[in-house]
Amino acid sequence: VGAHAIDRLSSLAARRYEVEDVGAPVASGSFPTAGMIVAPCSMRTLSALAAGIADNLLVRAADVQLKERRRLVLVARESPLHLGHLRAMVRVTELGAIVAPPVPAFYHRCSNMGEMIDHFARRAIDLLDVADASISTPWGGL
Amino acid sequence: VGAHAIDRLSSLAARRYEVEDVGAPVASGSFPTAGMIVAPCSMRTLSALAAGIADNLLVRAADVQLKERRRLVLVARESPLHLGHLRAMVRVTELGAIVAPPVPAFYHRCSNMGEMIDHFARRAIDLLDVADASISTPWGGL
Amino acid sequence: VGAHAIDRLSSLAARRYEVEDVGAPVASGSFPTAGMIVAPCSMRTLSALAAGIADNLLVRAADVQLKERRRLVLVARESPLHLGHLRAMVRVTELGAIVAPPVPAFYHRCSNMGEMIDHFARRAIDLLDVADASISTPWGGL
Amino acid sequence: VGAHAIDRLSSLAARRYEVEDVGAPVASGSFPTAGMIVAPCSMRTLSALAAGIADNLLVRAADVQLKERRRLVLVARESPLHLGHLRAMVRVTELGAIVAPPVPAFYHRCSNMGEMIDHFARRAIDLLDVADASISTPWGGL
Amino acid sequence: VGAHAIDRLSSLAARRYEVEDVGAPVASGSFPTAGMIVAPCSMRTLSALAAGIADNLLVRAADVQLKERRRLVLVARESPLHLGHLRAMVRVTELGAIVAPPVPAFYHRCSNMGEMIDHFARRAIDLLDVADASISTPWGGL
Amino acid sequence: VGAHAIDRLSSLAARRYEVEDVGAPVASGSFPTAGMIVAPCSMRTLSALAAGIADNLLVRAADVQLKERRRLVLVARESPLHLGHLRAMVRVTELGAIVAPPVPAFYHRCSNMGEMIDHFARRAIDLLDVADASISTPWGGL
Amino acid sequence: VGAHAIDRLSSLAARRYEVEDVGAPVASGSFPTAGMIVAPCSMRTLSALAAGIADNLLVRAADVQLKERRRLVLVARESPLHLGHLRAMVRVTELGAIVAPPVPAFYHRCSNMGEMIDHFARRAIDLLDVADASISTPWGGL
Amino acid sequence: VGAHAIDRLSSLAARRYEVEDVGAPVASGSFPTAGMIVAPCSMRTLSALAAGIADNLLVRAADVQLKERRRLVLVARESPLHLGHLRAMVRVTELGAIVAPPVPAFYHRCSNMGEMIDHFARRAIDLLDVADASISTPWGGL
Amino acid sequence: VGAHAIDRLSSLAARRYEVEDVGAPVASGSFPTAGMIVAPCSMRTLSALAAGIADNLLVRAADVQLKERRRLVLVARESPLHLGHLRAMVRVTELGAIVAPPVPAFYHRCSNMGEMIDHFARRAIDLLDVADASISTPWGGL
Amino acid sequence: VGAHAIDRLSSLAARRYEVEDVGAPVASGSFPTAGMIVAPCSMRTLSALAAGIADNLLVRAADVQLKERRRLVLVARESPLHLGHLRAMVRVTELGAIVAPPVPAFYHRCSNMGEMIDHFARRAIDLLDVADASISTPWGGL
Amino acid sequence: VGAHAIDRLSSLAARRYEVEDVGAPVASGSFPTAGMIVAPCSMRTLSALAAGIADNLLVRAADVQLKERRRLVLVARESPLHLGHLRAMVRVTELGAIVAPPVPAFYHRCSNMGEMIDHFARRAIDLLDVADASISTPWGGL
Amino acid sequence: VGAHAIDRLSSLAARRYEVEDVGAPVASGSFPTAGMIVAPCSMRTLSALAAGIADNLLVRAADVQLKERRRLVLVARESPLHLGHLRAMVRVTELGAIVAPPVPAFYHRCSNMGEMIDHFARRAIDLLDVADASISTPWGGL
Repeated sequence: VGAHAIDRLSSLAARRYEVEDVGAPVASGSFPTAGMIVAPCSMRTLSALAAGIADNLLVRAADVQLKERRRLVLVARESPLHLGHLRAMVRVTELGAIVAPPVPAFYHRCSNMGEMIDHFARRAIDLLDVADASISTPWGGL
Repeated sequence: VGAHAIDRLSSLAARRYEVEDVGAPVASGSFPTAGMIVAPCSMRTLSALAAGIADNLLVRAADVQLKERRRLVLVARESPLHLGHLRAMVRVTELGAIVAPPVPAFYHRCSNMGEMIDHFARRAIDLLDVADASISTPWGGL
Repeated sequence: VGAHAIDRLSSLAARRYEVEDVGAPVASGSFPTAGMIVAPCSMRTLSALAAGIADNLLVRAADVQLKERRRLVLVARESPLHLGHLRAMVRVTELGAIVAPPVPAFYHRCSNMGEMIDHFARRAIDLLDVADASISTPWGGL
Repeated sequence: VGAHAIDRLSSLAARRYEVEDVGAPVASGSFPTAGMIVAPCSMRTLSALAAGIADNLLVRAADVQLKERRRLVLVARESPLHLGHLRAMVRVTELGAIVAPPVPAFYHRCSNMGEMIDHFARRAIDLLDVADASISTPWGGL
Repeated sequence: VGAHAIDRLSSLAARRYEVEDVGAPVASGSFPTAGMIVAPCSMRTLSALAAGIADNLLVRAADVQLKERRRLVLVARESPLHLGHLRAMVRVTELGAIVAPPVPAFYHRCSNMGEMIDHFARRAIDLLDVADASISTPWGGL
Repeated sequence: VGAHAIDRLSSLAARRYEVEDVGAPVASGSFPTAGMIVAPCSMRTLSALAAGIADNLLVRAADVQLKERRRLVLVARESPLHLGHLRAMVRVTELGAIVAPPVPAFYHRCSNMGEMIDHFARRAIDLLDVADASISTPWGGL
Repeated sequence: VGAHAIDRLSSLAARRYEVEDVGAPVASGSFPTAGMIVAPCSMRTLSALAAGIADNLLVRAADVQLKERRRLVLVARESPLHLGHLRAMVRVTELGAIVAPPVPAFYHRCSNMGEMIDHFARRAIDLLDVADASISTPWGGL
Repeated sequence: VGAHAIDRLSSLAARRYEVEDVGAPVASGSFPTAGMIVAPCSMRTLSALAAGIADNLLVRAADVQLKERRRLVLVARESPLHLGHLRAMVRVTELGAIVAPPVPAFYHRCSNMGEMIDHFARRAIDLLDVADASISTPWGGL
Repeated sequence: VGAHAIDRLSSLAARRYEVEDVGAPVASGSFPTAGMIVAPCSMRTLSALAAGIADNLLVRAADVQLKERRRLVLVARESPLHLGHLRAMVRVTELGAIVAPPVPAFYHRCSNMGEMIDHFARRAIDLLDVADASISTPWGGL
Repeated sequence: VGAHAIDRLSSLAARRYEVEDVGAPVASGSFPTAGMIVAPCSMRTLSALAAGIADNLLVRAADVQLKERRRLVLVARESPLHLGHLRAMVRVTELGAIVAPPVPAFYHRCSNMGEMIDHFARRAIDLLDVADASISTPWGGL
Repeated sequence: VGAHAIDRLSSLAARRYEVEDVGAPVASGSFPTAGMIVAPCSMRTLSALAAGIADNLLVRAADVQLKERRRLVLVARESPLHLGHLRAMVRVTELGAIVAPPVPAFYHRCSNMGEMIDHFARRAIDLLDVADASISTPWGGL
Repeated sequence: VGAHAIDRLSSLAARRYEVEDVGAPVASGSFPTAGMIVAPCSMRTLSALAAGIADNLLVRAADVQLKERRRLVLVARESPLHLGHLRAMVRVTELGAIVAPPVPAFYHRCSNMGEMIDHFARRAIDLLDVADASISTPWGGL
């Protein structure tokens, strides 16, 4: 990923922490959040969460959402999946997380990759269940 | 899906069976195949396979690949996934199938959705492990 | 069930879909609902949900509630239950559904079957956890 | 329950024991019985049986039926059921008991609650499999 | 199977129902039977029973035998078996069914296929445990 | 615990029931609550809840929270823990309860035991997720 | 058991507590012991220990041996055993206890029941592994 | 065991087979029996049965009782039991056998070892459930 | 089996070992094979393999195929099957073996038992997946 | 933690290693120890141990205690706990470790936090089972 | 192994039993030992122990160590290992045995195979935990 | 390991990557390989693979072999093994890896450690199943 893209992303963020900063406020259960989305979520992060090995701020913050029983959405992008990947997905789901692979919603007829990503992002935010009104357009049926 | 698309697909197929035709040759283990790809693979098909309920030709033919110990690739497109979906994926993987969600390979920098689909199709065919030479371009690293 | 009863039920419904209509709007996670009650819920429906085999609109719509993490109440009426029924109940409960057999609440002293059914219906609606105020009368103790 | 009802029930019983009387004859496997029905069966009794904690005569006598491999019918009336209730039901079923929730058999068109209870009682007795002839009226189909 | 064979089979049956007729009397636990044999039993039927998905009269009637704790013999003819087939067999056995593949009993020295089928049919009937006297000839040892 | 302490505690309670009073209003699912905290929670109470043996009002009321899918916080104080204790904790967590041992939060630098207890009480109330605003002070990071 | 026998037993005991006295010193892990033998051990006691429900001093004291990782010998006398009894035995063994049914050691040729009991008692004490020298006579072989 | 004892036992038997004679009539399911008691039953025999390794006539005949769904009583005399022994007992019980350790029934007040053995033998025969009338004296309570 | 049949079989074999000869070359992983078929395969052999107890050359050689990850086909002929048999089949399948009961393929319309055996033998060899071309005739469909 | 506190702690230590020093003598099973206490023990350390991922000296040294079957006490301070934390605790306990959360022993009436910590430290040392005499004061009962 | 080697080994042994001698003194739990090392331990012996099938003195004596809760070290030499081997290793470890494959300790820089064997033998004896002082040289670190 | 040895090893390698280089070509499934051998394989690497935590190139590349269903041989050298090590070995084997501890093959009579290592290396390469002809000398039997 280019530096420019990271700058643009940072400018949109209210706050930003380094991944090694395990002492950041979001690493504590007493820090209030409405939930968390990890996108994209590598198998390494998902598996570390499944095993409870919070060795960086990303995994620790996700772990905190689970122990405080808040929404956690994991946009897992690995493919193909072996038995170990799937078992880790089962485990994080048992812990309360929502695994949501970024598969294109072909029946929504996105015409390009930007639309496809926007569509998936809206669906992920809906899963947080925090907005007063859902922001994704409901499907009208076939 | 439009009729035109189905016609084009049919013209590419060597043979074509109706999904209700459970007595078709591909429903028997004695019919030789090099493996099978189900794309896209709905949760209904994947779950029926996981439970062994071969109530149509699609599930029966996939079940036969497993009992004959041949390659079977399932392009599962559901998202998000609940515990039941994931356990069904675990089960078909334990039976020998390969679950491969059609997640876009962003680091391959596809510029449009057609390229993305082509790239994924090549990866699925590679997983069959039948070609003399792999047809997908190996990744050159970051 | 008589045609008259079905007409009366239909007149109360805001919308109505055929059970084969798997392409109806409620079959998609992007369609907003406050949850779902299946009453009565046969073992066939409950088991298909437990196995993830959404072969009709009823099972598919229930499956969608689970993948979107919404409330789903299953009024299971089978009796007696064998090990397979109970394990399917365990599985749907692990997926997030609430199994609620329509057993008469004798200690509420219903005098006829209509009262009994009304009482159970109110309890099922309470389980959806959607109303601003609960509509069932709390029990005053012995 | 009123004292009058208990008197009437007692007058029908061949023998009656206090629930604390763990030394009563029915607490021993050498005491011959044709089986046992617990109606209604609270979750507390069913769970104690599932865990093997026979702390009163009711649970001990039920436990004896299981160790002597006789029929045991449990009319479990809890609703809704959580995962713990269902797992206890699974466990007692694995031990050989029959879990039979008292759900009304609507398709038998009982006109009042007395008929409904009579119908269920007959079904529970049938499950004991002790009579020379079944006492419940078979269903004639739809 | 030819129409002639079906006619002959029908002429031997006391009663006959269509497989879609899920409202037939044998679909209810209150209908008395001495047990049931499914021969041959496809993996589709056995797996649907294992999963509790009684979507036709055959599976429903078999399911009823299990919930009423009667004998149920399944003449499963699939070969080879994959892990999913075997797990479904384990599950129906845990529910109380008896899985009996129609393997030829070579040590009984059947001289043709008719004898072989007769011999297996007698063994299946013995497993129902209903006759006053067993109808299969005991083996005399080597 | 001294009688004085119990009097003070009682004066703060809106209502108070004896632990043997299993017929009290809070023993029914139709009684509305915002959740429940058990503090301290002995292993005996936690294990009885894990096994579903609701033999007093405390366990019954906690069990009702679980079957109505409300928040239940268990302040388990046993130490050390053996395998049985931990498995019971796993089981109540699977049923939906939140196990929260009263371990001192040293990094919050409580100067005495009263502060430590207050801090933990606030955290337990936060876990009920009922207040409009959280009452515990978020941690500011290291 | 007669009062005389209890008196004789009491006269041999260094200390004696009532079974309801859950606040006795032996109920705490800080009270030092060399282990504990429960003889005879009813299924009720063994199952309560397996489930962690320490509702009397006997179970609590046994539970404490397990959490402090000391020897605990359970002389379980139930027979026959059903699946629930055996699973409870498996569970207490996993927690560290030693299940030792008082089966007669016929090959030691005890001539009367007193010798048989003495022999078993010595074996139980050996299992505590506390004496400097074993007090049971080793078997000389066939 | 002395030769004299074996002669006396043989004179009581209707038929007698060598343990290596795996081709004896009782090794076949078509040989009718009312069930089988193994007394005493070593852990080696019980474990071989649990694992399905029928390497002698004793284990094979016991295995046949299980596959024909007949009663099988195993008088297991090992003590103490480790986790492996208990798991094998769980497994044979799941297969349908009844594990019955020969523990003395002290509350029946046997005055010598012969009475104790007779009492246990009667109980084992009762478990076969074959006699028209039970031959063991029911317990009269405390 | 007669001596003549054994002679004929031996004359077809390239090499022949006694079943007790556990030191034969085929007992080592370094001995190259294309796989192994055990026909017929008794439950004793299949269960010993499932438990890893290689007490003769047959089981040892089969075990070696599994540890070297080669094809192993087990023609299991037991019927009916109890839970223990099925679990052993599950276990060997998890280890990589292929369980293939010799059930007649009726839809292939074999006219006598010799044809039936030949047909099954060809299918077993196909499962080894070693020939350049399959030797069994594919089924033409219904 | 301040540098002063670390200095004081270091002055009490016989030896001190950096956490990255995985080649230190305590990383080998041949280095003799009487056991090990990890206090406090973060969920990250406990989970890494549960998964066997010894990526620093702390986890490696703890892992060595387990493989050499020595005592290992883990003072786990996380609260609340989610399912993943509890399962990791179950796993390390199955491996032989002792999980001991630092919960205050209120019934010992510590007057300040120092006393509370001293009391817990003594209990943790007792769990090592290494001293000739226990150093914690036994509880005198209520 | 040559006869000379066996003679030398025998001359070092205090006592020696034939492997078929299942009635030898070491086959009884009342025979005192400080533990037992099986070196080398074949998969056949380890698996028989895992399944509880003590069909020779070696397995029986090892089984006795486990039921008496003494140390048992198994020097398992199989390689590669399949799933069945590993599960048997898991099982014997759960029963209390210590699996110790004779892998060379390269970092100890043994110059020849005799030194390597001596080093491993010392480590195995250390695992018995019986000597007053350990006989293996601790590793000094990298 | 000395720098000289590393230089020699490097000179034999076609390519070499740093262990932190997670973006190297071998970290992608599209990079073609014939399989992978990890020798020696520490428990840390094996456990990370079992948990799916690919935090360096070694684990990531091994994980890729599994998801692409290629051969992966793990030369695990830990000894003794505790329950956690063995469970991790079970898990990687379930994922498709081959665990092969480097135990000396004494019956091949290697005269020194170099021969022993060469012999094991050849066996590991054979397990990759890639060569046209096996390079290890088959064992000639005893």
